[in-house]
Amino acid sequence: MSGRFISLEGGEGAGKSTQAKRLAAALGARGIDALVTREPGGSEGAEAIRGLLMQGDVSRWSAHSEALLFAAARADHVEKTIRPALGAGRWVICDRFLDSSRAYQGVAGGIDDAAVLALHGFGSRGMLPDRTLVLELSPEQGSARAALRDGDASDRFAARGPAFHADVAAAFQRFAASEPERFRLIDAAGGIDEVAAAVLAAVADLLP
Amino acid sequence: MSGRFISLEGGEGAGKSTQAKRLAAALGARGIDALVTREPGGSEGAEAIRGLLMQGDVSRWSAHSEALLFAAARADHVEKTIRPALGAGRWVICDRFLDSSRAYQGVAGGIDDAAVLALHGFGSRGMLPDRTLVLELSPEQGSARAALRDGDASDRFAARGPAFHADVAAAFQRFAASEPERFRLIDAAGGIDEVAAAVLAAVADLLP
Repeated sequence: MSGRFISLEGGEGAGKSTQAKRLAAALGARGIDALVTREPGGSEGAEAIRGLLMQGDVSRWSAHSEALLFAAARADHVEKTIRPALGAGRWVICDRFLDSSRAYQGVAGGIDDAAVLALHGFGSRGMLPDRTLVLELSPEQGSARAALRDGDASDRFAARGPAFHADVAAAFQRFAASEPERFRLIDAAGGIDEVAAAVLAAVADLLP
Repeated sequence: MSGRFISLEGGEGAGKSTQAKRLAAALGARGIDALVTREPGGSEGAEAIRGLLMQGDVSRWSAHSEALLFAAARADHVEKTIRPALGAGRWVICDRFLDSSRAYQGVAGGIDDAAVLALHGFGSRGMLPDRTLVLELSPEQGSARAALRDGDASDRFAARGPAFHADVAAAFQRFAASEPERFRLIDAAGGIDEVAAAVLAAVADLLP
């Protein structure tokens, strides 16, 4: 049988990569093999595109070029990594997916949600996760955690200001409200174990 | 006043880059400043994307990823190089543009022409050249000239077989037939001077 596809979304420092690994471990303890991957990246071609997207000035790419590059990377990731893993019966846990493009290019670039979805339809046949978990944290807490993790190293997205990050958080809440079956909002302010328990509970109905 | 935008299309070895330079020189002799550029590339970001597109195996990218990468490169090229030059009153002569994506991704990838045009509408607001010159040469002559130029160095596109290149040539002829105002077919089998004269004649109605 085909595996399940879970994406983790949220702002910088919300704990997505930590919780992706914790969820994979919890699934493994239940006998479910899970692949942890991330965007942009997750396949050889997409990682090469990631280098173009994450480095350089905030203004390096126009919002439209950026949206096309994300869609290209995602198409490669879906084709080369995600679909093969699901087809082999593995679960896939992805640190950021389509909804990050909807939130970031939508908010930062003023690109219509319909246009982002059309690019995804073209590149990846519109593939959606079975469940999307939004890790919610105030932008202040997220920035503090990301700074603790990254030190002075900041990429093109983390470098934006607090109003931008608040807009991104509001966008994720809108998406969740419009697709309640796919989305779950998770309070990420607690400790790692506490959040991990909430994450596992949020996919419990998908377990075999 | 705004300059004119000319694209040169055709298969490998048809003489596009040579004729682009010759046309710029002929315009210069008439007091018209012309910028020669090329795709994929022509701006800093687009040249970085070019590296991803031209290197590696023929199968490195799916047709859909490839089409998105070309659209991203073209969006950057149009925004950073082509529109500013035209706005400053210069002519722009571009070695390959949108119609190469329509021919190559359409033929090789089976991507609908409407989808390629939709990506261009999204990335570059659908910008079209004022005139597109298709340099026509039999695939055998083109391959022989390209081999003479490149030796053993072959990129992901030149590496394809003769049936592919014949399909590309037929695609350019279809585009020309459907937009006779924009397109001119040029016989590129003659000597450089002879072809240069035909190229200049094909833009004569656009001269001030």
